Amino acid sequence: MKTFITDNFLLKNKTAERLYHDYAKDMPIIDYHCHLPSEEIAIDKHYRNITEAWLEKDHYKWRAIRTAGYKESEITGNIGNYSYDKERFDMWANVIQETIGNPLYHWTHLELLRYFNIDTLLTPKTSDYVYEKSNEIISQSDFSTKNLIKKFNVKFIGTTDDPIDSLSSHKLIADSGFECKVTPSWRPDKIINIEMPTFKSYIESLGNVSSVNISNLDDLLSSIKVRIEHFKNHGCTISDHALDQFVFTREYKESDVAIIFKKALEGKSLTNDEIIEYKSYVLVELGKMYAKNNWVMQIHIGVIRNNNTKMFKLMGPDTGFDSICNRSYARELSLFLDTLNMSEDLPKTILYSLNPSDNEVLGTMIGNFQGGISSKMQFGSGWWFNDQKDGMERHMIALANLGLLSRFIGMLTDSRSFLSFSRHEYFRRILCNIIGTWVEDGEVANDIDFLGNIVKDISYNNAKKYFDL
Amino acid sequence: MKTFITDNFLLKNKTAERLYHDYAKDMPIIDYHCHLPSEEIAIDKHYRNITEAWLEKDHYKWRAIRTAGYKESEITGNIGNYSYDKERFDMWANVIQETIGNPLYHWTHLELLRYFNIDTLLTPKTSDYVYEKSNEIISQSDFSTKNLIKKFNVKFIGTTDDPIDSLSSHKLIADSGFECKVTPSWRPDKIINIEMPTFKSYIESLGNVSSVNISNLDDLLSSIKVRIEHFKNHGCTISDHALDQFVFTREYKESDVAIIFKKALEGKSLTNDEIIEYKSYVLVELGKMYAKNNWVMQIHIGVIRNNNTKMFKLMGPDTGFDSICNRSYARELSLFLDTLNMSEDLPKTILYSLNPSDNEVLGTMIGNFQGGISSKMQFGSGWWFNDQKDGMERHMIALANLGLLSRFIGMLTDSRSFLSFSRHEYFRRILCNIIGTWVEDGEVANDIDFLGNIVKDISYNNAKKYFDL
Amino acid sequence: MKTFITDNFLLKNKTAERLYHDYAKDMPIIDYHCHLPSEEIAIDKHYRNITEAWLEKDHYKWRAIRTAGYKESEITGNIGNYSYDKERFDMWANVIQETIGNPLYHWTHLELLRYFNIDTLLTPKTSDYVYEKSNEIISQSDFSTKNLIKKFNVKFIGTTDDPIDSLSSHKLIADSGFECKVTPSWRPDKIINIEMPTFKSYIESLGNVSSVNISNLDDLLSSIKVRIEHFKNHGCTISDHALDQFVFTREYKESDVAIIFKKALEGKSLTNDEIIEYKSYVLVELGKMYAKNNWVMQIHIGVIRNNNTKMFKLMGPDTGFDSICNRSYARELSLFLDTLNMSEDLPKTILYSLNPSDNEVLGTMIGNFQGGISSKMQFGSGWWFNDQKDGMERHMIALANLGLLSRFIGMLTDSRSFLSFSRHEYFRRILCNIIGTWVEDGEVANDIDFLGNIVKDISYNNAKKYFDL
Repeated sequence: MKTFITDNFLLKNKTAERLYHDYAKDMPIIDYHCHLPSEEIAIDKHYRNITEAWLEKDHYKWRAIRTAGYKESEITGNIGNYSYDKERFDMWANVIQETIGNPLYHWTHLELLRYFNIDTLLTPKTSDYVYEKSNEIISQSDFSTKNLIKKFNVKFIGTTDDPIDSLSSHKLIADSGFECKVTPSWRPDKIINIEMPTFKSYIESLGNVSSVNISNLDDLLSSIKVRIEHFKNHGCTISDHALDQFVFTREYKESDVAIIFKKALEGKSLTNDEIIEYKSYVLVELGKMYAKNNWVMQIHIGVIRNNNTKMFKLMGPDTGFDSICNRSYARELSLFLDTLNMSEDLPKTILYSLNPSDNEVLGTMIGNFQGGISSKMQFGSGWWFNDQKDGMERHMIALANLGLLSRFIGMLTDSRSFLSFSRHEYFRRILCNIIGTWVEDGEVANDIDFLGNIVKDISYNNAKKYFDL
Repeated sequence: MKTFITDNFLLKNKTAERLYHDYAKDMPIIDYHCHLPSEEIAIDKHYRNITEAWLEKDHYKWRAIRTAGYKESEITGNIGNYSYDKERFDMWANVIQETIGNPLYHWTHLELLRYFNIDTLLTPKTSDYVYEKSNEIISQSDFSTKNLIKKFNVKFIGTTDDPIDSLSSHKLIADSGFECKVTPSWRPDKIINIEMPTFKSYIESLGNVSSVNISNLDDLLSSIKVRIEHFKNHGCTISDHALDQFVFTREYKESDVAIIFKKALEGKSLTNDEIIEYKSYVLVELGKMYAKNNWVMQIHIGVIRNNNTKMFKLMGPDTGFDSICNRSYARELSLFLDTLNMSEDLPKTILYSLNPSDNEVLGTMIGNFQGGISSKMQFGSGWWFNDQKDGMERHMIALANLGLLSRFIGMLTDSRSFLSFSRHEYFRRILCNIIGTWVEDGEVANDIDFLGNIVKDISYNNAKKYFDL
Repeated sequence: MKTFITDNFLLKNKTAERLYHDYAKDMPIIDYHCHLPSEEIAIDKHYRNITEAWLEKDHYKWRAIRTAGYKESEITGNIGNYSYDKERFDMWANVIQETIGNPLYHWTHLELLRYFNIDTLLTPKTSDYVYEKSNEIISQSDFSTKNLIKKFNVKFIGTTDDPIDSLSSHKLIADSGFECKVTPSWRPDKIINIEMPTFKSYIESLGNVSSVNISNLDDLLSSIKVRIEHFKNHGCTISDHALDQFVFTREYKESDVAIIFKKALEGKSLTNDEIIEYKSYVLVELGKMYAKNNWVMQIHIGVIRNNNTKMFKLMGPDTGFDSICNRSYARELSLFLDTLNMSEDLPKTILYSLNPSDNEVLGTMIGNFQGGISSKMQFGSGWWFNDQKDGMERHMIALANLGLLSRFIGMLTDSRSFLSFSRHEYFRRILCNIIGTWVEDGEVANDIDFLGNIVKDISYNNAKKYFDL
């Protein structure tokens, strides 16, 4: 049975079709925030097979398979034992048709079509055929990470990197003359999460790579500056923060924070207030550095991570045990942004909310600090659990109602997989359908060229300008 | 004037029509959570007339009539004075057309059609006719609770019962060889709500019915075990908790809880922390017992009850003075589930949220604890104020986006009325319309038989399997 | 290029068209809550030009222009320097087409059409033409505030006024025999916000205008009573409260509050608990006075104001730096309403939420205190950031699902501009489209006259009755 993906997939009227085919479709891709491993680009990695590409890291799929009732041993227990690769693929083929209404259903078939030219529903009956055909293509020499990036016309990739990372892969990529710019993004969560048991040892590592003996708060800042310089030398212009349940206070003194930091280095336990004071201070100091370097600051809010302690002990983070939080954070976020803004230190900022019920909080929050450049403050694209048709529609309609959709910097994959670039197509179809529907419903004037240019801007031009590419 | 209810009511396209008529329509009903009084089944009760059936307990209708401006004396003041029955029915006939957009509008006319074959709008003009015709049918000998259950092909009813209930009605029903299985559900709210002035006397009653002299925490657990065994002997496999504003802490010690419980028995007042510690402990202990007995745990969250003290004093609970809360509870709920899961004591669980803005919190929360059986964790159907077309659509679309709609155990009425079974039809039409629309919009492959089976599963098979029926 | 605004703008089917054209369109307007300056009505003010009318006070437009990247100096820096009027208008002409999906896009073109008969998209190319033509009309003698009010058939305007306001403009308007009733609304925020640095001096002013020497809590109440009498003498029947992040406690004693108030008068700092106790007390006392006078109480919740301290210092409040809060307040709001209700002192009340995620909280909250008169408790129309098609639809569908849409008192502009009356048309089109769509989808019986009367009620009659006009 053929898939549901036609030329006009998700385009529900003529204007939407024209906007997509004549304006959006051929724009290059800027994937400004993802978790692609730079080393896999540097070595121009080839996948072993479709099972490796799809089922070794993708916790979205794992969650679906768990829900279908499979045991963990079948899902992730035998990763690395290649003799189970076909069996594991069949497991996914058993589950995928049950994911109707879930983005996995669209993503999977879109990837089959765009990466492997397979226009067949993946079912238990077609599993053998799809496995063989996709693996045949994967085994071809041009199915490598760099070639995939080229094939999808990706002009920029922003990876996600720890401050202590050597960035050697990024250097290799740059030195190779690769036509897509691949730069690191600065993700200093481990500098901020002072409550973690690994904090002390992490700070030691940070000291080592920056050649700073970190024994007090000043040393920490010096060390951070060294590493920011290092990242900058490798082309970094973007930072990223996972501030799951955003906390912030203005009520801290640098001298107190210095004491708190020392306590942490001495392995002493901290009160909740101390933790918040430290985090607030470091966030503000980092924000200032971003502003000084004209970096973009990304803030991701609204997550409860590692809810399942049993599985966390077995598998670690990012394995599919995270969910959406409904804690209120608007006031604290406002104070943080305002603190930076008061001293003219607020960098370009992208705010992401995992809870779509907070779309309107962020959609209005960005409006408080705009001006001077085109949408300096951005409300980031539907993130993680919202990275689907309904989530994107809710996000873009909220953004349009509360700000300027036309100045939106658009889609990012946030993905760990080189098979996710087709999600930019997915996003663009949804974008074109929203605007096309407005036109056909008589809510927007039918100036196709003007609207087409907005579509092009959101697909590519706005991000290009925003990130100075 | 005829009603708006056609054969294709709520079915907006051909695929939706086929899914409903060819797959959903004839499936039996499992009503796994409701408030039907078991004694009214046991005695095969007949209603006095349509006024008794519709207006003596239904606080949804009372709220609408209050909003229309009637005085409480007219609405509930003369219940029991049968000479007002027609007058009270006329009052509802005056209001019902004003409820457009409210589920009462759909429910009322659907009940008229399915229970009484009356295809006429209920208005002040038709009130006499509808009153007479419906009462004529009600007066017939086969219009009894048991016959209604049979007529609607209900295979299972899960009532809601207090741990001290004798369950004698359930025994009578079972002994009568009634073809629909009617089993109690364990609702131990009064064991948990230690802050209530009636707590001490309730614990005494609990001790009495379980023949345990409850003077300490161990006695309490012993007593609970006796009653759980009692419920089990009457076929119970489901528990239910009204945890309105979910609170939970891991920071309790059993020895402290023992002291707190003693204080409560001595009538001493408790601090807020003590209340939370006690509740957390008891919840965890109950959860373990459910897991051991393979019971399902239902948790209802997000309510503020009895907002109107004046009316609460006059009428007591469940009289239409409850509303939706927006307090954050995600972290606490996560800790509770994780606590049980860590010791392998997490039972099958259904989570319900009264606040639809928290749909995404629950839709992702269940994903943290899946695996081993088909959707062990369930996000329960649109509850109470969400039990309407928009609420069901929001719930099912959130569930689909964040998990597997295909594994959903579907509809329950949560109702106190034997005239509510037609809400299963209502639900199924909405379900079929969602999936049908996906197909017609080209977002899901048009494999009608595969989708039809999903519809059958959600209508009946999934619940049958989930509750081991 | 012509605008998108046709006769059937926003009306997507025949029933919607009939409801709008045959029932809604010609109903008069009641604008029961707005910020129109009464002095501009009293003097029958003429605008200088379209720039004054559109760009001197409208922080909605300022926010959009800031987002487009303009500098503050260009946006608000040269207000008052009339030589920049055309330049500033051109700036808006540069931005407006980028606001697709934002209410500004609809509002702007609707105002051009209804006030100036200009059916042309405002773009950089048409900016000269639109500027000239609109200014030509503005310069005509009949383009005055009073004539605009008459032209739009406005029967009632409720302005927003401080308790110390002399209300001399309202007296002038009344004395002039103006056919539209223009009465003040009582907005005592400055009496409540005891934490403000200006509190003490404000209380002095309040004492002065009421001829009460306010040295204790009793004096405060006496003074308030004097001013309420003053407002009543000028026709006031409506109060309004900006309770941004609603706080309330029942745990206060009048004697403690008296001490807290004295402390504030002495310039001593207050604890957070003291602030909440004072506010709770005053709110309850005011509520009682409203009930006694049969005034309506309006409560606006869910705002974080003045997020941008730098701009607040430059420009003051209400300049476009406010956003939506996601703090939970349901329990506190319930306690407040219940406190008044317990002593039979709950006035007619309208609740507004800035966060649309709380629509269901308010939609159910009002249901707890209904009865006796037609929808005594109202869930107020989509407010501020929700004053757009999607926000209105979400509001009205939530209200319909949870209460009685038919008893809704409908639209208000909340505006500072005499060019906003066309938003009532905007609202009515959306209302008619919602009901029309229900009919065409077969979800509501097609009794056009009955539904038309509901539309008329929501457009005008319900408010007329509710406010005793």
